[in-house]
Formats: sequence, C-alpha cells, structure tokens
Amino acid sequence: MTTGFEPILGIDPGFARCGYGLIGKENNYPIAHTWGCIQTTPKTGDTSIRLLTIFEGIDDLIETYKPSCLSCEKLFFSRNTTTAMQVSEARGVILLAAAKNHIPVYEYTPNQVKLAITGSGKADKKQIQMMIARLLRLSEIPQPDDAADGLSLALCHMNWMRTYR
Amino acid sequence: MTTGFEPILGIDPGFARCGYGLIGKENNYPIAHTWGCIQTTPKTGDTSIRLLTIFEGIDDLIETYKPSCLSCEKLFFSRNTTTAMQVSEARGVILLAAAKNHIPVYEYTPNQVKLAITGSGKADKKQIQMMIARLLRLSEIPQPDDAADGLSLALCHMNWMRTYR
Repeated sequence: MTTGFEPILGIDPGFARCGYGLIGKENNYPIAHTWGCIQTTPKTGDTSIRLLTIFEGIDDLIETYKPSCLSCEKLFFSRNTTTAMQVSEARGVILLAAAKNHIPVYEYTPNQVKLAITGSGKADKKQIQMMIARLLRLSEIPQPDDAADGLSLALCHMNWMRTYR
Repeated sequence: MTTGFEPILGIDPGFARCGYGLIGKENNYPIAHTWGCIQTTPKTGDTSIRLLTIFEGIDDLIETYKPSCLSCEKLFFSRNTTTAMQVSEARGVILLAAAKNHIPVYEYTPNQVKLAITGSGKADKKQIQMMIARLLRLSEIPQPDDAADGLSLALCHMNWMRTYR
C-alpha cells in the first residue's frame, strides 16, 4: 500500500463527532487511504456508551489499517470548560486505543497544523481544506469538515517527519 | 457477599493517582470490600500508556468484584485547565471500562459527596475521612487519601439509593 512509509492515522478528537483521516505514501507522494467521522448519537445518550463508540471506532481503524502512529490534536485552554472536559474524555479513549495497539501518539496544536499545511498561521479553514485536497491530489475537498481535519493532522505529522527526521 | 445489595465501586478519578473503594452490605450495614489507589508512574511516562494503566486497573476491579455500578466524581470548572483536561482524559477511560462491562455510571459533585457522608457541606477532609471509617466500621481511616475518596463516592451513591429509591 505504501512505499517505505507506514500509514499515519490523523484524529480530530471530539465527543459528538470525531474526525479521522488515514494517509500513506505512493511513489513518494502522500495519498489518502480513507477518511470519515465517528458520530456518537443520540446526544441524550449515556456518556460512557458514547465513549465506547469512539473507542471501538478508533480501535477498528487501527486494527484494519495498521497505522504506524496516531497524530492527534492537542487541546488548549477553552473558555467553554464543559466542552473542553468532554473532548478530553474523548481524547482519553482515543489515546487508550493507541496504547492498546502499541502505537505511539504524536500531538499537534491547531496552529502547528495550520503552519504545516499552508505555511502560514493566518490561513482560514477553507484555505486549509483546499490545500489538503491539493496535497492529496483529491478532486474535491474531503467531507465532512471533521474528516478533513483528521487528514490535516496526518499531513502535519508527515511534514514533521520530513522536516525533523 | 452482600444481602440484597450488589457492590458499588466508587472512583475518585485522577491521572497520576486514581482512588477506588468497593462497598457492599452485610446484615443491612455497609461494609468495605476493598479499597486502594491506581498509580500511573513514571510521571515522565507516555500519556497513552498511563491511561492504559488506569483502564486496565478499573477493568480488572470490575471483572473481579462485579459491582452493579460505578459512582464517579463529577468535575467542575478548574482554574488549572491542564489538570482538568488530564483528569478528564482519565475519566474518559474509567467511564469506558464501565460501558465495556455493561454497568451504569452515577456521578456526584464533591459537594454532594460531602453532604451525603457528613450531612454538612462545611465538613473538612479529616471529618469526612473519620465519618467514612465510622460508617464502614473500620478501626482506622482508610489509606491513602485517594482510597478514602473512592469509598466516599461509593457511600454517597448508597445514600442516594436509600433516599430516592
């Protein structure tokens, strides 16, 4: 599937929606293997069951595609602490899925991702999405937005590996 | 082990130290079956591996003692957001262990626990610990503090069940 490059699973952690994107390399170019979004519904559902949905979704992806690592968004202070705590609970089970499958986790801030993809910290969401499509030679912007965010995390880590290894 | 009363596993969630206490009933009195603290070391260790330690610890307790439910501390806004997010990640894997084992989770704020144990919202830590030892007819205050906190969560839920069921 790849040439000298194991796939990277990028994750945009969320409690209601958790985006993911798996990339590899083909003839020295990055390619997207799959992308999507794990949704936990209903919103009124039990928190622990919704966390189980996220864990099983990520665990399935790792078992199916055998990525070499996870690239996950790092959270920063949020004014909405309730949201920050819910997303952190989701992050907990995502990191657990990585540890269970013995793969390392790399973490990047939204700004690091923006810089890695567009070379600018000022790029807006649309510009980032267009750049993701271009880098991965996709004819359309990957949908939904959460999936594009997942792909951006994977591309950010690929860029980091190129630059620093 | 119990008389008409399945054990309750109380959890004081934490990232470095996660306290637990398992209580049941004997001749209509609450008794402590076990208590302790899951420690994740070293502090420099990988976050995902430390979360795996917590998950496996709670999962083992549930499989061994087969509690009917989990009683877990609910987090509120914390000034130290980094700590709040780390504890939330730990909470994520704790709630996941409950969902994986098909048992419900009940959540209580520190103030609800304080009120349930001592009848007062003004009790200090020492008073709560003494009350835990008295309620569970233990000759000494359970150690470490995290374990006593775990037992207090379990006692709080037992009290809630008595009052509202």
